[in-house]
Amino acid sequence: MKALIIAAGEGSRLKPFYSPKPLTPLLGLSLLEHVILRAKEAGITDFVIVVGHQAEKIIKKLGPGEKYGVKIDYVYNSDWKKGNGASVYAARDKIKEPFLLLMSDHLFDEKILQKLNSFYPNGQCYLCIDRNIQGQHINPEDATKVSLNHEPTIIDLGKNLSEYNAIDTGIFLCSPIIFSALKKSIARGDYTLTGGARLLAQQGKLKAIDITGHFWIDVDDVTALRKAKKMLLANLDKATDGPISRLINRKISRFITTWLCKWRLHPNTITILSFILAVAASALFFLGKKELILAGGILTQLASIIDGCDGEIARLQFKKTKFGELLDRTLDRYADAFIIIGLTHAVFLALGNEWVWVIGLIALLGSFMNSYTALHYDKIILLRQTKNQTSFRFGRDIRLFIIFLAALINQLSLALIILAVITNVESIRRLVILSHEYQSV
Amino acid sequence: MKALIIAAGEGSRLKPFYSPKPLTPLLGLSLLEHVILRAKEAGITDFVIVVGHQAEKIIKKLGPGEKYGVKIDYVYNSDWKKGNGASVYAARDKIKEPFLLLMSDHLFDEKILQKLNSFYPNGQCYLCIDRNIQGQHINPEDATKVSLNHEPTIIDLGKNLSEYNAIDTGIFLCSPIIFSALKKSIARGDYTLTGGARLLAQQGKLKAIDITGHFWIDVDDVTALRKAKKMLLANLDKATDGPISRLINRKISRFITTWLCKWRLHPNTITILSFILAVAASALFFLGKKELILAGGILTQLASIIDGCDGEIARLQFKKTKFGELLDRTLDRYADAFIIIGLTHAVFLALGNEWVWVIGLIALLGSFMNSYTALHYDKIILLRQTKNQTSFRFGRDIRLFIIFLAALINQLSLALIILAVITNVESIRRLVILSHEYQSV
Repeated sequence: MKALIIAAGEGSRLKPFYSPKPLTPLLGLSLLEHVILRAKEAGITDFVIVVGHQAEKIIKKLGPGEKYGVKIDYVYNSDWKKGNGASVYAARDKIKEPFLLLMSDHLFDEKILQKLNSFYPNGQCYLCIDRNIQGQHINPEDATKVSLNHEPTIIDLGKNLSEYNAIDTGIFLCSPIIFSALKKSIARGDYTLTGGARLLAQQGKLKAIDITGHFWIDVDDVTALRKAKKMLLANLDKATDGPISRLINRKISRFITTWLCKWRLHPNTITILSFILAVAASALFFLGKKELILAGGILTQLASIIDGCDGEIARLQFKKTKFGELLDRTLDRYADAFIIIGLTHAVFLALGNEWVWVIGLIALLGSFMNSYTALHYDKIILLRQTKNQTSFRFGRDIRLFIIFLAALINQLSLALIILAVITNVESIRRLVILSHEYQSV
Repeated sequence: MKALIIAAGEGSRLKPFYSPKPLTPLLGLSLLEHVILRAKEAGITDFVIVVGHQAEKIIKKLGPGEKYGVKIDYVYNSDWKKGNGASVYAARDKIKEPFLLLMSDHLFDEKILQKLNSFYPNGQCYLCIDRNIQGQHINPEDATKVSLNHEPTIIDLGKNLSEYNAIDTGIFLCSPIIFSALKKSIARGDYTLTGGARLLAQQGKLKAIDITGHFWIDVDDVTALRKAKKMLLANLDKATDGPISRLINRKISRFITTWLCKWRLHPNTITILSFILAVAASALFFLGKKELILAGGILTQLASIIDGCDGEIARLQFKKTKFGELLDRTLDRYADAFIIIGLTHAVFLALGNEWVWVIGLIALLGSFMNSYTALHYDKIILLRQTKNQTSFRFGRDIRLFIIFLAALINQLSLALIILAVITNVESIRRLVILSHEYQSV
């Protein structure tokens, strides 16, 4: 299915800050790129973009779509000043089958588009609506209000509707019938998309799809842009995040991610950066001097925090790759090992007992076994979360935090013993849980 | 689809040794159990078994099928002495739809049954035939010969056919039309299945399915039983076996497996046995005395060999489980770690240099990284093999063999250095290969 994106307008309220509006930067991507990449996640690779205001800038930036792995066709609407209905209407010759209609300034959870897969517009149109009309993400002055009956079919819509029970999200699933409706509406002098949609509603041909609870936002001004950024960042936590990650690391890594986004760094570069920090921490530990141990502890925790940023940027900018994930996991294991080697040497220098090395080897073993069993165990954690059961995950975030705390109080031997015991106990615990899970399959 | 298994005959040539024939033991399972479990692997869970000779023994042994995770219905054929056609005919009231017809004394590769999924017998029957009429697995005196045209439709079949171009494998895919054919054939005094099949062939209703190259064997006498055992054992190698595994370990583990099968040990018990051997080896190394190191080396290699047996028995007896695989992998990692800890301590006792411990930690790291990257890398090895490309896998078999050799010549320090270098080089090599593979996806 093709997606038609309207990117012709001026965006008067953002204009003093960013122009053209579809290229407004947000966490390393423009608004329009966010829309394209989210639609691509839902399986759409064929786009028609209607441009108008500063068309050449947009076309120059996006090109034929190759760099996003999609195909982009452009339609120029010289009437863009008249209204967004005229822009949709301008694409009528490019689209002869049902299509997805998106706004370049409306961001959304890609799961909404996946939900649309079970609908097919046959001589009618669907509009995604949000029943949470008081939502934080909605600007009540500017939103297009929707009045719908229980079917749910839309009865009327508009910015000035006095009675309404939902909000227009700007996501349409259309049959080409929308073009006939727009033609009539334009002939009557109404150049807005809402005008065409209202005509369909009057004929009972505008159905509603309820997407309440999913993330979406109309980015019309600087306040909305700030809200959008906050919502995107809030969605970055991973289901398998451990407690230190959730309570401490993510809060800091999100700030760093915002900052790294501006630099347009590739996620794999950040993976390597986190690895270098860990190697530096390991070297500082290895030397075994008190002040270096403190610095090593801080670097360890910093590496742990930055380790979250690569995934955050990959998810934000749709740059997740199989190799990126493998590189991250592999370098994390090497980083863990180097830190434990440095740690063990520091404790050996302090205590001079060869058994320290055996404990170091056991700590390395346990640390690895945690990562090794995680490949199976995380599936159970995810399953529990879909059932809304709480789960505590003992993982890398906690291991590195223990080392950080021990370095702060210059008690690395304590960290070594705790790690040697706790990681192996945890691995055996996981094996027991997995044995029960797998037997019940 | 139901499977009808004929298990009513006497098996005169095996009778002096094993009786009843369907319960003849072979690598820990009876012949009949092999047939049922192989059919189950191909997705069949509904069985009708025709019994006759020593019926009660067979029914007592197999029961209603619960312990195999299938449903078994029995039909008693009082005419079993007359011929196997009478036994098939006895099941006519139990089967009203197309069904699979199997002999309790014919073993086969379950892939043959998967191949049958693309055929559907509509008013006709299919017989699986083998064009390799000179095959080692075929007893030319006893085999049912088949003459077929190029369609391929079977023209005639029988034990005494003078001109033939294929052999009957005893695997039929039948429509209930076989019962009418048997009725006619029995009325003429021919009680064999071949008699009924010949009638179908005369009407052009017996089609051939070519399964040449797949494993199958008719177990009619002690020689065939020995051949069947050899063929089953030869199929146990894993595609990801390394060179030491292929050239040395598998050759020995197959013997041990044959022997362990008689004890009816569960694969997980053998996993734990191999782990205990490795822990014992580790303890012997740890003590660091010359003669103990030699014993430790031998135990290490023995643990490596026995580590193959759990999988062999699981594959032979269809006891593969997700938990079994996880237990095997996890205990292997613990065993590897313990052996390296013991090894490192022995080298430290000999050299007295603390850097030995750092090398030990690096060897443990590399050893783990091999196992960790294997989860991705093995997919590439398997892919290469389907393309008939050779591949060399540096894995646990080689690591433990290096330790074994070093222990033989009392040079554990050499093993430690080699492992520290080679395992980490291999992990990085894999990461580079995976980066290319994943980028080309």
